[in-house]
Amino acid sequence: MVPHLVTALSGPINELEQRILDATPVIERWFRLEWMEHTPPLYCSVDIRNAGFKLAPVDTNLYPDGWHNLSADVLPLAVQAAQAAIEKICPEARNLMIVPENGKPGSFYLASLARLQEIFRMAGLNVRFGSIDPAIKRSSTIALPDGETLTLEPAQRTRYRLGLKHFDPCTILLNNDLSAGAPGILEDLHEQYLLPPLQAGWSVRRKSRHFQCYEEVSKRFGKLLGIDPWLINPMFASCGEVDIREASGGECLRTNVDALLTKVRRKYKEYGINEKPFVVVKADQGTHGAGLLTVRDVKDLEPLLQKPRAKAAQIVPRGEVIIQEGVLTHERIHDAVAEPVVYMIDRYVVGGFYRVHAERGEDENLNAPGAHFVPLAFSSAAQLPKPGAKAGASAPNRFYMYGVIARLAMVAASYELEATDPELQSWSESPRTCRRPCAGCKTSDSDLKPCVAINMGAACA
Amino acid sequence: MVPHLVTALSGPINELEQRILDATPVIERWFRLEWMEHTPPLYCSVDIRNAGFKLAPVDTNLYPDGWHNLSADVLPLAVQAAQAAIEKICPEARNLMIVPENGKPGSFYLASLARLQEIFRMAGLNVRFGSIDPAIKRSSTIALPDGETLTLEPAQRTRYRLGLKHFDPCTILLNNDLSAGAPGILEDLHEQYLLPPLQAGWSVRRKSRHFQCYEEVSKRFGKLLGIDPWLINPMFASCGEVDIREASGGECLRTNVDALLTKVRRKYKEYGINEKPFVVVKADQGTHGAGLLTVRDVKDLEPLLQKPRAKAAQIVPRGEVIIQEGVLTHERIHDAVAEPVVYMIDRYVVGGFYRVHAERGEDENLNAPGAHFVPLAFSSAAQLPKPGAKAGASAPNRFYMYGVIARLAMVAASYELEATDPELQSWSESPRTCRRPCAGCKTSDSDLKPCVAINMGAACA
Repeated sequence: MVPHLVTALSGPINELEQRILDATPVIERWFRLEWMEHTPPLYCSVDIRNAGFKLAPVDTNLYPDGWHNLSADVLPLAVQAAQAAIEKICPEARNLMIVPENGKPGSFYLASLARLQEIFRMAGLNVRFGSIDPAIKRSSTIALPDGETLTLEPAQRTRYRLGLKHFDPCTILLNNDLSAGAPGILEDLHEQYLLPPLQAGWSVRRKSRHFQCYEEVSKRFGKLLGIDPWLINPMFASCGEVDIREASGGECLRTNVDALLTKVRRKYKEYGINEKPFVVVKADQGTHGAGLLTVRDVKDLEPLLQKPRAKAAQIVPRGEVIIQEGVLTHERIHDAVAEPVVYMIDRYVVGGFYRVHAERGEDENLNAPGAHFVPLAFSSAAQLPKPGAKAGASAPNRFYMYGVIARLAMVAASYELEATDPELQSWSESPRTCRRPCAGCKTSDSDLKPCVAINMGAACA
Repeated sequence: MVPHLVTALSGPINELEQRILDATPVIERWFRLEWMEHTPPLYCSVDIRNAGFKLAPVDTNLYPDGWHNLSADVLPLAVQAAQAAIEKICPEARNLMIVPENGKPGSFYLASLARLQEIFRMAGLNVRFGSIDPAIKRSSTIALPDGETLTLEPAQRTRYRLGLKHFDPCTILLNNDLSAGAPGILEDLHEQYLLPPLQAGWSVRRKSRHFQCYEEVSKRFGKLLGIDPWLINPMFASCGEVDIREASGGECLRTNVDALLTKVRRKYKEYGINEKPFVVVKADQGTHGAGLLTVRDVKDLEPLLQKPRAKAAQIVPRGEVIIQEGVLTHERIHDAVAEPVVYMIDRYVVGGFYRVHAERGEDENLNAPGAHFVPLAFSSAAQLPKPGAKAGASAPNRFYMYGVIARLAMVAASYELEATDPELQSWSESPRTCRRPCAGCKTSDSDLKPCVAINMGAACA
């Protein structure tokens, strides 16, 4: 199924597409060399926004759900990629345990889990679900709408291993973002592979670190292609711990929002873009796009910051925040605003879909209740470049470009996981260091300059 | 596109299918372990025949053409597999040179070459064609029906490398079966990868060696699944050098044909199969199914052997021959007899098609002028097993089974290439020996017993 897709068919994006198409062998070789030095996360999904003049990842999910939204046609691709992953991790494996999110799974999440099980089963593993939710004390079988069933069992810990009754997995696949921190049950599993690793959980992960790594990747990629990295990179600043109940917290937000808006305005002027710049303030950790604040002018912050503290705190994300350049999405499916989500397993793009929201604007977050999903036309060779076709004129080429950008975000994720790997702390001795370590700087409210400097590419203070 | 397919939906084949489906994780793990010890050929196609009661490979092509017959839907799968292959062979590669068949390429072969180029280009390599045909002295560009062009250039040899003008490939992909022997231009390329290796050429390769290796594979696989290996293995005998102009040549043929027919009859009786057994006499080396002789009764040989020598020699293949159990094909597409051909790149099944011949019988060779091709329904997850569906009831499961059998033949090909690798001659010291070396025995006419014994699994004389 090819969705009826309207994208901006003129402007700098077509030049970018053309360069990406012309450089396919160079790009693929670049990725091959990256993956010689860095380990891709086992799986990953990336939200991309195509503004017509710029194309950038806005969110990289290391515990992707939504697998059921992929077209059934791309299943062989996902299975093949999963086989390649297993072959590298533990070819002698028989069993894989998937650790789902805690809590009672909703019907969409169940469908996603079932699809994930299908992929790894067809790749040649016995797959079962081991919950680490302390509330799950006994195994329960849930009927799915398609007549299949899914069994959730409580994971059982022995001294060195995690598994189920009579089920000893070689690899444990986390599909739980560990927002509340790494539970003891997952720690010190020296004999089993835990993927993604513990530091990918949201108790350790920071969006600002990811986008700092991504900035590095986009600069090198921009150099490779001879393009301004801004065309694929959303600028950002981070603010450390913000408590807007305190004056310093508000001040940090004001300064950074203002500085970032000014930079975006300058870029829009440089490229002759007649759009209103905006930035997005969001929590630096955590998933599901909750607590997102769109700001078009620094003055818009004032009413918020002057609101009674309790109320303001409901609107402005609490804790560490990242202030990110807003990227419009100029894509539409039947008049509704759409953004592509690209799925990867190992180093391979295995599919994707459009997240579509009829009631949201082109500068708003679409990852919200009311969104629906349209499988991307990845089925008919669509993530492959078509050398003959003109840039902007073909869906396959557009999707190949999306796959390239998504893979750049995956490279950034691999840098990020290295930077936070407790076993790779001494950079000089490790065989798998980042070329330029991006350890992420946590700044205090009173120390604003280094935050902005991160985004300029300077070393962290 | 799902071809309208009529297969035998009862009998032992469904039991086989059920066992294969039930054992998917076991089978995939078995393949993973095989590929840890053995190197798959870079690419390979396998002709399979499904008799309803037995399913077996009848030909394994290490220089496959016909790539254009694969559905465009499976292209992403082929590209992903090619990426996996490149990553292992030489990730830092920029260039790949394909060596096509000698002679003036026909339009079908050109279409196949163009598809092959497309696959490896999209996988991230600059791909050009370097001919080793001494008649090709300058580069020529040929227009293809779809408006694209294909350029054939003469390969240039330097002391240690082969390439083109201003084009130095890391890997040379042979699509030339080297029937006339390995030409000097390909020898002693110590700094480049030549794939498949020289010993895969028909001057070295013997069908009997391949099927001897396959027999070993089918026995181990049969043990894994608890099935009679005969259900997936075509029995054979080989006759060494046969010259039917001499009495001993005719005698070797008679004895082996008779012995093999007796064995097949016994198997048919064991399984209650009401079909007439037949054997196929074919040249032990060489491609394209030329010079194939179907024999249903040893008496049928007599008129041939008593014919004037010159005439008989036109019908019975000359040189070394293999006498193989004939496998019926019970598959039909619109009343025409069909057999599946499965394509693989690296260790992955990437697609397939049905070879269909309206004018041939179910016990005849379909690889003949007049055949046409119907892409297999591999596009919609069809090579993946569908655990819920009943055996025999679903195309996906049938195709998954074909993919398993084709991969068994590929494992046999990897054994075969090890057995004939000049660098792996001393088995005991090599890290990549066959578990049970199958070096292939060449027997003289007067030494009939060992030929038959090969097929019984005994050591070669």
